[in-house]
Amino acid sequence: MGQSSIEDILKDKDKEQMKSLLSPQKNIAKLKAGEKVEGIYLIKSFEVKKTAGGKQYIDINLVDKTGEVNAKIWDYSKETEKTVTENGIVKVRGEVLEWSGSKQVKISKVRGTIPQDNVIISELIPSAPVEPTEMLNTIKIYTKKINDSQVRLLVENILAKYNNKLIYYPAAKKNHHSYMGGLLYHTMRMLQSGEKLGQVYSFLNMDYIYAGVLLHDICKIIEMDSDEYGVVSDYTMEGKLLGHIIQGIKEIEIEGEKIGLDREKSVVLQHMVLSHHYEPEFGSPKKPMTPEAEILHFLDIIDARMFDFERALEGTEPGSFTDKIWLLDNRNLYKM
Amino acid sequence: MGQSSIEDILKDKDKEQMKSLLSPQKNIAKLKAGEKVEGIYLIKSFEVKKTAGGKQYIDINLVDKTGEVNAKIWDYSKETEKTVTENGIVKVRGEVLEWSGSKQVKISKVRGTIPQDNVIISELIPSAPVEPTEMLNTIKIYTKKINDSQVRLLVENILAKYNNKLIYYPAAKKNHHSYMGGLLYHTMRMLQSGEKLGQVYSFLNMDYIYAGVLLHDICKIIEMDSDEYGVVSDYTMEGKLLGHIIQGIKEIEIEGEKIGLDREKSVVLQHMVLSHHYEPEFGSPKKPMTPEAEILHFLDIIDARMFDFERALEGTEPGSFTDKIWLLDNRNLYKM
Amino acid sequence: MGQSSIEDILKDKDKEQMKSLLSPQKNIAKLKAGEKVEGIYLIKSFEVKKTAGGKQYIDINLVDKTGEVNAKIWDYSKETEKTVTENGIVKVRGEVLEWSGSKQVKISKVRGTIPQDNVIISELIPSAPVEPTEMLNTIKIYTKKINDSQVRLLVENILAKYNNKLIYYPAAKKNHHSYMGGLLYHTMRMLQSGEKLGQVYSFLNMDYIYAGVLLHDICKIIEMDSDEYGVVSDYTMEGKLLGHIIQGIKEIEIEGEKIGLDREKSVVLQHMVLSHHYEPEFGSPKKPMTPEAEILHFLDIIDARMFDFERALEGTEPGSFTDKIWLLDNRNLYKM
Amino acid sequence: MGQSSIEDILKDKDKEQMKSLLSPQKNIAKLKAGEKVEGIYLIKSFEVKKTAGGKQYIDINLVDKTGEVNAKIWDYSKETEKTVTENGIVKVRGEVLEWSGSKQVKISKVRGTIPQDNVIISELIPSAPVEPTEMLNTIKIYTKKINDSQVRLLVENILAKYNNKLIYYPAAKKNHHSYMGGLLYHTMRMLQSGEKLGQVYSFLNMDYIYAGVLLHDICKIIEMDSDEYGVVSDYTMEGKLLGHIIQGIKEIEIEGEKIGLDREKSVVLQHMVLSHHYEPEFGSPKKPMTPEAEILHFLDIIDARMFDFERALEGTEPGSFTDKIWLLDNRNLYKM
Amino acid sequence: MGQSSIEDILKDKDKEQMKSLLSPQKNIAKLKAGEKVEGIYLIKSFEVKKTAGGKQYIDINLVDKTGEVNAKIWDYSKETEKTVTENGIVKVRGEVLEWSGSKQVKISKVRGTIPQDNVIISELIPSAPVEPTEMLNTIKIYTKKINDSQVRLLVENILAKYNNKLIYYPAAKKNHHSYMGGLLYHTMRMLQSGEKLGQVYSFLNMDYIYAGVLLHDICKIIEMDSDEYGVVSDYTMEGKLLGHIIQGIKEIEIEGEKIGLDREKSVVLQHMVLSHHYEPEFGSPKKPMTPEAEILHFLDIIDARMFDFERALEGTEPGSFTDKIWLLDNRNLYKM
Amino acid sequence: MGQSSIEDILKDKDKEQMKSLLSPQKNIAKLKAGEKVEGIYLIKSFEVKKTAGGKQYIDINLVDKTGEVNAKIWDYSKETEKTVTENGIVKVRGEVLEWSGSKQVKISKVRGTIPQDNVIISELIPSAPVEPTEMLNTIKIYTKKINDSQVRLLVENILAKYNNKLIYYPAAKKNHHSYMGGLLYHTMRMLQSGEKLGQVYSFLNMDYIYAGVLLHDICKIIEMDSDEYGVVSDYTMEGKLLGHIIQGIKEIEIEGEKIGLDREKSVVLQHMVLSHHYEPEFGSPKKPMTPEAEILHFLDIIDARMFDFERALEGTEPGSFTDKIWLLDNRNLYKM
Repeated sequence: MGQSSIEDILKDKDKEQMKSLLSPQKNIAKLKAGEKVEGIYLIKSFEVKKTAGGKQYIDINLVDKTGEVNAKIWDYSKETEKTVTENGIVKVRGEVLEWSGSKQVKISKVRGTIPQDNVIISELIPSAPVEPTEMLNTIKIYTKKINDSQVRLLVENILAKYNNKLIYYPAAKKNHHSYMGGLLYHTMRMLQSGEKLGQVYSFLNMDYIYAGVLLHDICKIIEMDSDEYGVVSDYTMEGKLLGHIIQGIKEIEIEGEKIGLDREKSVVLQHMVLSHHYEPEFGSPKKPMTPEAEILHFLDIIDARMFDFERALEGTEPGSFTDKIWLLDNRNLYKM
Repeated sequence: MGQSSIEDILKDKDKEQMKSLLSPQKNIAKLKAGEKVEGIYLIKSFEVKKTAGGKQYIDINLVDKTGEVNAKIWDYSKETEKTVTENGIVKVRGEVLEWSGSKQVKISKVRGTIPQDNVIISELIPSAPVEPTEMLNTIKIYTKKINDSQVRLLVENILAKYNNKLIYYPAAKKNHHSYMGGLLYHTMRMLQSGEKLGQVYSFLNMDYIYAGVLLHDICKIIEMDSDEYGVVSDYTMEGKLLGHIIQGIKEIEIEGEKIGLDREKSVVLQHMVLSHHYEPEFGSPKKPMTPEAEILHFLDIIDARMFDFERALEGTEPGSFTDKIWLLDNRNLYKM
Repeated sequence: MGQSSIEDILKDKDKEQMKSLLSPQKNIAKLKAGEKVEGIYLIKSFEVKKTAGGKQYIDINLVDKTGEVNAKIWDYSKETEKTVTENGIVKVRGEVLEWSGSKQVKISKVRGTIPQDNVIISELIPSAPVEPTEMLNTIKIYTKKINDSQVRLLVENILAKYNNKLIYYPAAKKNHHSYMGGLLYHTMRMLQSGEKLGQVYSFLNMDYIYAGVLLHDICKIIEMDSDEYGVVSDYTMEGKLLGHIIQGIKEIEIEGEKIGLDREKSVVLQHMVLSHHYEPEFGSPKKPMTPEAEILHFLDIIDARMFDFERALEGTEPGSFTDKIWLLDNRNLYKM
Repeated sequence: MGQSSIEDILKDKDKEQMKSLLSPQKNIAKLKAGEKVEGIYLIKSFEVKKTAGGKQYIDINLVDKTGEVNAKIWDYSKETEKTVTENGIVKVRGEVLEWSGSKQVKISKVRGTIPQDNVIISELIPSAPVEPTEMLNTIKIYTKKINDSQVRLLVENILAKYNNKLIYYPAAKKNHHSYMGGLLYHTMRMLQSGEKLGQVYSFLNMDYIYAGVLLHDICKIIEMDSDEYGVVSDYTMEGKLLGHIIQGIKEIEIEGEKIGLDREKSVVLQHMVLSHHYEPEFGSPKKPMTPEAEILHFLDIIDARMFDFERALEGTEPGSFTDKIWLLDNRNLYKM
Repeated sequence: MGQSSIEDILKDKDKEQMKSLLSPQKNIAKLKAGEKVEGIYLIKSFEVKKTAGGKQYIDINLVDKTGEVNAKIWDYSKETEKTVTENGIVKVRGEVLEWSGSKQVKISKVRGTIPQDNVIISELIPSAPVEPTEMLNTIKIYTKKINDSQVRLLVENILAKYNNKLIYYPAAKKNHHSYMGGLLYHTMRMLQSGEKLGQVYSFLNMDYIYAGVLLHDICKIIEMDSDEYGVVSDYTMEGKLLGHIIQGIKEIEIEGEKIGLDREKSVVLQHMVLSHHYEPEFGSPKKPMTPEAEILHFLDIIDARMFDFERALEGTEPGSFTDKIWLLDNRNLYKM
Repeated sequence: MGQSSIEDILKDKDKEQMKSLLSPQKNIAKLKAGEKVEGIYLIKSFEVKKTAGGKQYIDINLVDKTGEVNAKIWDYSKETEKTVTENGIVKVRGEVLEWSGSKQVKISKVRGTIPQDNVIISELIPSAPVEPTEMLNTIKIYTKKINDSQVRLLVENILAKYNNKLIYYPAAKKNHHSYMGGLLYHTMRMLQSGEKLGQVYSFLNMDYIYAGVLLHDICKIIEMDSDEYGVVSDYTMEGKLLGHIIQGIKEIEIEGEKIGLDREKSVVLQHMVLSHHYEPEFGSPKKPMTPEAEILHFLDIIDARMFDFERALEGTEPGSFTDKIWLLDNRNLYKM
């Protein structure tokens, strides 16, 4: 059995070489039962299994940026196992079947990639729809909008500390924004919505809206272990025992002390992080006690829900319903 | 004992005559224990009571647009009772005391108003901070933004039906936006926020955002009985047995049928009204199944919460907490 | 793979021809592991599958009025697949096995039915224990007992509208009374119980008890799509977005308006439909506010529970317990 | 201060003598503010109090079978206090006032009763609407309907044991059926309803329905201390520490053993008592596992609810709502 | 398929003969994927199954005192099935594989045990870590510490009644202390902790602490059917319909009456049993009303939790987390 | 009106002088209605009120270490008000009355204290039953039992920081241990119980039990503002916005960093503080993941409950019940 992180696999390869991708290639989201398939995919995981009758075969999960599909290599050979083991990215040929309502690829041929394949990695990794550098830029612009120089400095210092990871971290292990750059994208959209709502509810203190959004999830970076493709292998020890809310509070306390941040400002920001999940059973032992903390919660949940709705409805035909969506309390969504 | 609706009282008077108000007058919100007070106020309710020792006195609640205060006339006379009974608006003179932590006015003199008092009614009635006609205008502009002509027509027809009451109805009997014009103000702000969020989440269908906001609470007008000063005496019979959500759904069904509204559009709009309270225990037996229904809920709750936060913090000193606020799960809010 | 609705299958056949059934035939409920089986059954669904070793076989679910059983045809051939695909009802021969605690038929022979088989469809379709016409009659008798002529007319008009479907609709997709004629049977028993309780609690207004029972679930007919054998393929679009409670309320509103039904009567009946599930989380945002609405709820739940208890205990040996029953909060029932 | 049980008071008097009541007498339920009152009432409790100014007065609560009213004797004298202390039943003269929305009697004259008053005690005590002996008779008839001679004997023995108290015990300290004979009345109505439902759901074992109803609340007699007028002073020590459900189970266990009752029958009956409150938080750690136990719960709750609805709506005008009723989750009931 | 209770199997064998165990033998807890295995194990259950391709094989679960492992005999023969069917304990030879993350033994050879195997049964049965007689002794010592002679006699009589089963009964079917002697071990540790806490909270009445602990779970012996190896086949009929709490209360009532136990003492002890699960939804309709009843609950839950924590962390590496533990609300425990 | 903190009052006095107390003095807990009273008490709060008739009087709450009682001075004079305002401790003479079931003192004479009164302050302040220095000593002994020198140093440093306040801080504003020295007493008893349970559950790491207990509530000192008599005026700003759990975590993080505490040890201790309230709705977003964290919770809750039970039962007669106790879910406790 082999279960390798995407990062490990790619590390040992000449990444420069994998630049382009033989076209045309079938995107996983577009596979249809009954059709032939030929394409280059990333191996998310694989396992050598046996049929109940004892025959060996290889069970693989393939991904590209559009989705994931299960595949089988029924004709097992040591050589084929070697190909699968040694290559993180493979070119496969086969046939798409339908199996208990899901698609499955029956692979007839598999090989490692070669320079002529011109692999473009970004085509294989699910990630945010905006370029990381563009998102990082947007975030910096909002940081600059913080008028209180102490608060701005605090935010800048903390962002600087996590900058290099922020560029690829997902916002979650599973669920909403759990892809490369997801944390950044989530933060950016909340800043945009926050700015807008601040135009309607003009008594809000925008410094705290921006600072609250920028800091509320930043410690997810130390709560989870993600590789640079946004795949989280696990939560960290401190992440499990304390969680990103507690970690974020400590971050503000300590970084605030370093720059002599006014005690009231520090505590109010910590309170925003503490209360942003709103309900005790979701991790917030205190409910928001300032309007900015209240809004922070709504910015957060709206962005998560919009993500879930948009994704769930993506492949749905107009006039029909999705399957039950566990994340959304088993609702069946309707696509107009 | 006498408990008269504000509307009844004012009906029998020459309203034209009450145009101005002798200045300077103490706003109720600004009364301070220990000071003298002289001013013109609306009588919200009054009762002739007896002390445990059997002595009669008059217990009155006075309001102006800034708040409400309890007052006592210890020197009871038939004549004074007559003055209080026959006048909806009175001029009083007295002294502000503190009683178990609340302010109370000990009235030494009271009389009905006279033309020279130049009463301005709008100074006495709590109401939305924007002019009704301006709000109505804004609402019409948003209605025009609905591209689907069927949906727009439906909204226009329903608004037209309730137009004359919409101008003064509150959004609730108690709690958020429970003042003259509150329903209109609540609707307007939700339209504004909805428009903004639609700029961030561009996959949303704005026609349904606008139509959903405009219709979601419209049947509060037939759920509650309000006088033209925005004071709700009670819920209606149908309001109690069915509620504005059910009433709103029927409205769309029936008005939709009249104009031949596409069945799918009608049902989707009814679903938005049905699900906008989100939780079954708050009146929504179905959760939102479209992204527009989901957002409608958040626009609604954000506007209610911002109202509550803003009001609660109004009189609070920076650096201190409010008392426990029942409406906000007994939170003590903090004013920075 | 093939999943065909029972109705579709039967439509293309000479139903007249299938009149009798070769006896003796094994009822599905009476199959015992280790025995031979030969009989005529309806195919509920089937699928061509592959073993882990790649061999094809056919997986079928067979039903008759007594129950359902899974079966396998291990010897796959194109011809057998054709037989299964083209026939809704088949005659099979095989052997009953036990598989992980469930019975399973290993089919050795399968063919379509022939005239000589004399198929009686009612033997194959699970349905209510009373004849539809008898139930419909009973319901009409109770309708006549409504003294208020307006209310009676309302009920008659609505029943007339749904009459042709009421005769076969089930009361649910799964769970209680989910068989042909189930809705009618459920309604009839509630009328009978309601009449009885009205003899004990004589202050109840029987007009509303009868009207409430007759209308409370009638819109299940437009909430679900059922074929004429009482098999529900799915909920309708409006059923999912609004549900039969909301649909029933609109029905009363609209049909009531047509006949000039007194407003109070209409609203009280709508309230009964609205509140009959009692708890918000089960779909009723208002609790019963009249004694008739209160009783309606209990008539409904008692009938559902008695159905579940009776069915669950059917095959249980005296002195033993049933397995955990999910529908009844995982209770193990005891059979005395 | 004096708070005396009704029973104590009456014990020391010649009850024979108090046979009739001077007519006409104002029933408490019919008192109207502004009218004079003269009548004979039972003193439920009284207290000598002081006004804030230090003046003594007597605060009394008067009852008759139609209700309860608070009264004041402002002219305190030692002699008046003696009259109130020494008489359980008094004749009063006074005036009905309205005080913060409640009626209150201002007593000008009070004296003890005299033979010529011809007091009829049953006019003063709230009680079930059917004669105790008639109810007891009905109960015996149902007992005879139990076919299983062992089960019948068990029920007869237990009823015999509590017979003399059953005739006057209420079914509760407060709430439903909390009056003289309430337990008997509650039991009788449940037997009647149970018989009726057994006609619809014919698979039910009526022996257990009848036995279950007859035994389910019988140990309320040892859970509460009631005087012979159905007024409960308190729960007993065992009632508080264990409760009537546990007490009832032990009763069946022990009395069953005495007559050699079949173990299965005993346990099934104990289970019915154990599960009849249905929800753990209402005292039933096990949910019903037999259909008879299930029905027992519904008979119980229907009778309680019908009692509450009937009482709540008694004085309500058609077309109006009651106040919020705490016992019914704060519902406002509607009277058609 | 064969599923035989351990007890049945062993009954028909010469237990004297199985005295020793050929060493060295691999403990199940120590099996490692990739290694050979040879050892003597108890067959917990087995089933003859078929692969999807129709080939027969035997699926067995093997246990020893350290744990349980699934095994397969792929080479099915009638003879092998007979060996497995006729022997409760077998000697197997094979290879340890890893299968979807779990260990699995592929058995190549299996035979029944022979005298020379010198089987020591206690090596095969999971049981408490202290000798039963030693635990029984400890329990008797604590019983002697009860000063009130009536209470002590009650406890002694009840213990005597269940003595012979107490020595091997588990404390549960699954979950904490579900092994041979578990009930005794659980009781003993609670007595020890109770004694200790009594030293800190000296106002506690130790007689009731000891008596409460000794009696609180004693009726698990009549709630569950356990063989003499601590394996529970099922709950008893009375166990399911009433449960050990109710059974324990009746035990105290009846045995108390026999020895003339003071009524207050009996009721207080019954109350302790009734309330020891604390929450209604866990079976206690009354909460503790004496400090001894309160402490009894905590002694119970602490012992259960310490058991769960100790077991869960047993095989965990320092610095790592366990998997999610269902019994502990899906917590991942951390091992320092 | 005057509401002065005890501390303020005492500050301006010569505390040295108030050394003894005129004996005999009536302890507040022992006051009986109908008796005369003469004694020296602390004024907790007072207010000048008016009767409904307009007469002024003084309403005072008096305390000594045994309890609190309400008192009235009906004969108001400016001079008496001055006496009450200027003295924190007064000598009063009067009569004990019963008022609506509570005791009340009618004061006839009041004066400030004089040197000859020999006031002993500790007789007037409710406090823990053990001397502060003795408790502090015990705590230091347990600190020394921590074997891990890093962990011990951390605990010593934190205790040192709060040492001077720990000696008088209560453990709560209201509820359990809300008196002078309450925090210390609570901590001490938990250490004692923890030591005991460690003897039974020997796999527990005692270093973490002791450190966890010593640190779990230490930040209550910065969560609440207490005067040196253990009376909490309010929560601090940081206390309200974050709470002592979050504050305690930050304390360990920061103090741990200062001494180079091993990261794992620091996080595990922080987790103990985080999880010690166990349920999210009581402030712990994470449940205990180590056995020591699990035990810490139980030590905490047992000590709180034993405190509540002991106090509630203090004045209760054997064989009777207490009133409903809000803190204990409205239970009525029983005193054997």
